[in-house]
Amino acid sequence: MSAAEPAVVARVEASFARQAFMATLGARLAHVGAGEVEVHLPVAAHLGQQHGFVHAGAVATIADNACGFAALTLMPPGTGVLTAEFKINLLAPATGEALIARGRVVKAGRTLTLAMAEVFSVSGGAEKLCAMMTATCMTIAGREGIAD
Amino acid sequence: MSAAEPAVVARVEASFARQAFMATLGARLAHVGAGEVEVHLPVAAHLGQQHGFVHAGAVATIADNACGFAALTLMPPGTGVLTAEFKINLLAPATGEALIARGRVVKAGRTLTLAMAEVFSVSGGAEKLCAMMTATCMTIAGREGIAD
Amino acid sequence: MSAAEPAVVARVEASFARQAFMATLGARLAHVGAGEVEVHLPVAAHLGQQHGFVHAGAVATIADNACGFAALTLMPPGTGVLTAEFKINLLAPATGEALIARGRVVKAGRTLTLAMAEVFSVSGGAEKLCAMMTATCMTIAGREGIAD
Amino acid sequence: MSAAEPAVVARVEASFARQAFMATLGARLAHVGAGEVEVHLPVAAHLGQQHGFVHAGAVATIADNACGFAALTLMPPGTGVLTAEFKINLLAPATGEALIARGRVVKAGRTLTLAMAEVFSVSGGAEKLCAMMTATCMTIAGREGIAD
Repeated sequence: MSAAEPAVVARVEASFARQAFMATLGARLAHVGAGEVEVHLPVAAHLGQQHGFVHAGAVATIADNACGFAALTLMPPGTGVLTAEFKINLLAPATGEALIARGRVVKAGRTLTLAMAEVFSVSGGAEKLCAMMTATCMTIAGREGIAD
Repeated sequence: MSAAEPAVVARVEASFARQAFMATLGARLAHVGAGEVEVHLPVAAHLGQQHGFVHAGAVATIADNACGFAALTLMPPGTGVLTAEFKINLLAPATGEALIARGRVVKAGRTLTLAMAEVFSVSGGAEKLCAMMTATCMTIAGREGIAD
Repeated sequence: MSAAEPAVVARVEASFARQAFMATLGARLAHVGAGEVEVHLPVAAHLGQQHGFVHAGAVATIADNACGFAALTLMPPGTGVLTAEFKINLLAPATGEALIARGRVVKAGRTLTLAMAEVFSVSGGAEKLCAMMTATCMTIAGREGIAD
Repeated sequence: MSAAEPAVVARVEASFARQAFMATLGARLAHVGAGEVEVHLPVAAHLGQQHGFVHAGAVATIADNACGFAALTLMPPGTGVLTAEFKINLLAPATGEALIARGRVVKAGRTLTLAMAEVFSVSGGAEKLCAMMTATCMTIAGREGIAD
């Protein structure tokens, strides 16, 4: 994976740490590169949907973060990132020991950045693709309270 | 809103209650009609993203549930529901006192059902649209462990 | 339906008329209201996919136009409209005598506008929903060649 | 790229050839591999939107075909393919001399197959990414008139 400047890594780490919802899920930031981010989520009972799989909403949450923070690594200092829209295809039940969401920037623009993420379920060391997302991330400049 | 048979309401309530992730969020099932479901989520600190809004993933979670359970109200007994894909557009920051996700079936098919949901943020009794989702829900028949 | 200012109607008509692809398809602008647009497309052999239905791409084309021009009706003079993304769910084969795409603005923003469209197939005077789209439209200001 | 069995290539070629809309656009099938398909579209005036770019609907059409036929290469004989939904992000104006849509299967399932496509605009031999699609393709078995 590509390396990111220490200031960029620190920027993403700080923003991720401010997300209380990540602590609620138990997710952690596992990698920050230039235009790419990886988020890990241990599978746990409090994330379950009705059949015992991880809820699609939790899967979408870490994929959205992997996309949004991948986009943030390429945004100018002083700006913030918001997701304008995302679509996720759920390909297999999210089970196993942990989920890994790997996001990367597809095209960075001045206002809009397209990122995509793949989510893998990890079981006994083997990874299986369980979801794919594309997300449009928006660079927010000069709006109070929206800086990362 | 349209009424649902008591057995349908009970079916959705039981499935919703099995979702541990709903308790994690603090979401509750507020209405079950024929082809429509409403989910309420009090805004709370543990749901926050980095700017203090409710995380897009939490917004998506209740919208996905509103879609999926709306679809389930029209599915044959003995089947289960899984989301194949959804797309959500985030239109305004999810803030206020509570979020309301209203889902309804657009077209029910034998295998695939399209549902949509609108999410409103409620503040001082006024509702404001903050997100819209379309979701493809799949009727699962005869697969062990997937019944609702 | 809501009325649009004559200047707005003229603006949309002029932009639609510049789209050579509409003539290629045989589509026409049937209604322009404030925040809503209707496009009609007679079903014809040159639009067919392999089973004889209208190709999903042609269905998406008129839905995209219904969304984009609905958004344009609410954009400031001198700006232009481009579609940033759209998602379409194809619900039934696009057949019959004609297709009608009805688009409307869901939320108009300064930079991004969310619009949605429903596409109906018309047969013997009866309409049947065959597709639904949500589209993110972008207001383009000050970029040469992109004005509507 | 991976090779496909001659019977698979013939199957896709025959289905593509039955799509009258491809002739209307001027698109041709450029490559068929196992789980991947490439479609070429010369840029021409009859495809234009109001600013002179290729219409997003035409871009979506070849991307949809690249996805759908990539999916078809992996489907059992006697079945047909229909697109259930797709989402496309439009990243740059579709201009240049030609567009190339490259589709590939992300996950093939019994009923649903997820495919994705990238569309490039070609100018002076250089390719530039102008759109990305994800599409859910459905295997249709035993429905009259829907075989490929």
